[in-house]
Amino acid sequence: MKITALAGGVGGAKLAHGLAQILPPEDLTIIVNTGDDFEHLGLYICPDLDTVCYTLAGLANPETGWGRTGETWQTISNIEKLGGPSWFRLGDQDFATHIERMRRLKAGQSLSQVTRDFCKAWGINHTVIPMSDNPVRTIVKTDQGELAFQEYFVHQRCEPRVKAFRFDGVEEAKAAPGAREAIQSADAIIICPSNPWVSIAPILAVPGLRPEMEAKQVAAVSPIIGGRAVKGPAAKMFDELGIQPSALAVAEQYRGLVNYYVLDKIDSQLEAHVQRLSMRTLVTNTLMKTADDRKRLAEDVLNFAGNIT
Amino acid sequence: MKITALAGGVGGAKLAHGLAQILPPEDLTIIVNTGDDFEHLGLYICPDLDTVCYTLAGLANPETGWGRTGETWQTISNIEKLGGPSWFRLGDQDFATHIERMRRLKAGQSLSQVTRDFCKAWGINHTVIPMSDNPVRTIVKTDQGELAFQEYFVHQRCEPRVKAFRFDGVEEAKAAPGAREAIQSADAIIICPSNPWVSIAPILAVPGLRPEMEAKQVAAVSPIIGGRAVKGPAAKMFDELGIQPSALAVAEQYRGLVNYYVLDKIDSQLEAHVQRLSMRTLVTNTLMKTADDRKRLAEDVLNFAGNIT
Repeated sequence: MKITALAGGVGGAKLAHGLAQILPPEDLTIIVNTGDDFEHLGLYICPDLDTVCYTLAGLANPETGWGRTGETWQTISNIEKLGGPSWFRLGDQDFATHIERMRRLKAGQSLSQVTRDFCKAWGINHTVIPMSDNPVRTIVKTDQGELAFQEYFVHQRCEPRVKAFRFDGVEEAKAAPGAREAIQSADAIIICPSNPWVSIAPILAVPGLRPEMEAKQVAAVSPIIGGRAVKGPAAKMFDELGIQPSALAVAEQYRGLVNYYVLDKIDSQLEAHVQRLSMRTLVTNTLMKTADDRKRLAEDVLNFAGNIT
Repeated sequence: MKITALAGGVGGAKLAHGLAQILPPEDLTIIVNTGDDFEHLGLYICPDLDTVCYTLAGLANPETGWGRTGETWQTISNIEKLGGPSWFRLGDQDFATHIERMRRLKAGQSLSQVTRDFCKAWGINHTVIPMSDNPVRTIVKTDQGELAFQEYFVHQRCEPRVKAFRFDGVEEAKAAPGAREAIQSADAIIICPSNPWVSIAPILAVPGLRPEMEAKQVAAVSPIIGGRAVKGPAAKMFDELGIQPSALAVAEQYRGLVNYYVLDKIDSQLEAHVQRLSMRTLVTNTLMKTADDRKRLAEDVLNFAGNIT
């Protein structure tokens, strides 16, 4: 079964890793959000792309949910001593990724070419594609004005109240080479348990991708468990947008796109409500604490999606 | 006594450090070669400026003659794994300098402003000035064509045979703020034991600096001891340019500029020859192996220069 998964950061990366443990390389493509990419310290930083790749390669730091394992902090601490901006914590190994990526982009390579080369260097055999080679920038409209995503997310620690989101440049963006084709040729699309507002919505906003998906069977896994986000500000965002955060609220965001919806056992009381959105449901353990959890959830989702086709 | 010193890399940095151990901050200005600066990996690297600053701050690696002490190599080894250029060995701490410098230059700061701020952060109280805020690039004409300095020096390990040197951009370069004034107000100028071709010549080529120096008493310390360079390709360069390398050959390069010349005891037989170039001479131990050697040589040179004024 050919699967194309959409992923943002940590949660998405974990399920992608689970899927990669089961599916052969030629049967899994992961399309990754680039809306939270930004230029910082003159370097090109792609947090979601790196989280997905580091996770697939076994290089991810399991404690932080970002960055690399066995990381050291010499560069950023010396930048700090020089009075430079140090709020975005980049490790010494991680710096290599951003320095070399910027070098290649400046030399004319596309982000998807760079990603392909990096995956090869890191021993990742499944296909990872950024949603677009064109810059798309998630802007968070807040009670403190419009904030670039990392400014909101890292520098201001998600403290400003969210009012809306905007994806700068998305109208002009083209889907990265292979992204549409991966959706077209997939037996099923899996939307990983990523933030629907800032991880999945930017991907769906890239011209051409959502229409392709609407022609497909699409399964989504809720990133909200028991009314709370496993990681990140998804629940807080729902709250501030006036929507009670729940697996049901996420399902409502995906109405008209998703036909198969996976929610946690703790949320089983929501199953009937989700079904009323014309979605078939799977209730299972969706919390991924261990590598085994990732694989088990991936199996559950694939079995569920297996019934789709 | 107010001293302005001209310095390139290791040898120059060592004597500058010796001078800084003796002279109060307001009495020592060090003008540093920027001809071997280059952009690499999207960063702005100033090898001589950094060697001088790291040495003054006690941060320099005493074994390599470049980079920092207690250095780690996570970033460059990961760039290497990604297939990026790794021939220029930058340590993790060192990367911070180049990243933050490039960030500031792009934000509109001048190189001398950046240098001033970095010196402050590193606890350097003496004044360090790059020769110019404008890019000047040393080009080495070799039997393998023209090579940018670091390409010749590091990447090709000084292997190509040297034919001549060119300092791209020097005609249009302006001396950095304070450089001319530091020469004008000095009681004596000290040319540190740096490579005359690629460390001192670029400084002298900056419009206005040499004429100011010609009005002054100028002491130079030979970087060639017993016909060999203590470090670096100076002797090899003399050879390939058809000049037998010696302390005398260096003195001849400084004819018309230098009135006081310091050579090593091992070269005492050259003293009379140097004197024929209208230079007064000091014969002393010029090899700086320890921190004490630096201070002692600085004392010798200052006492010698003290007789100048």
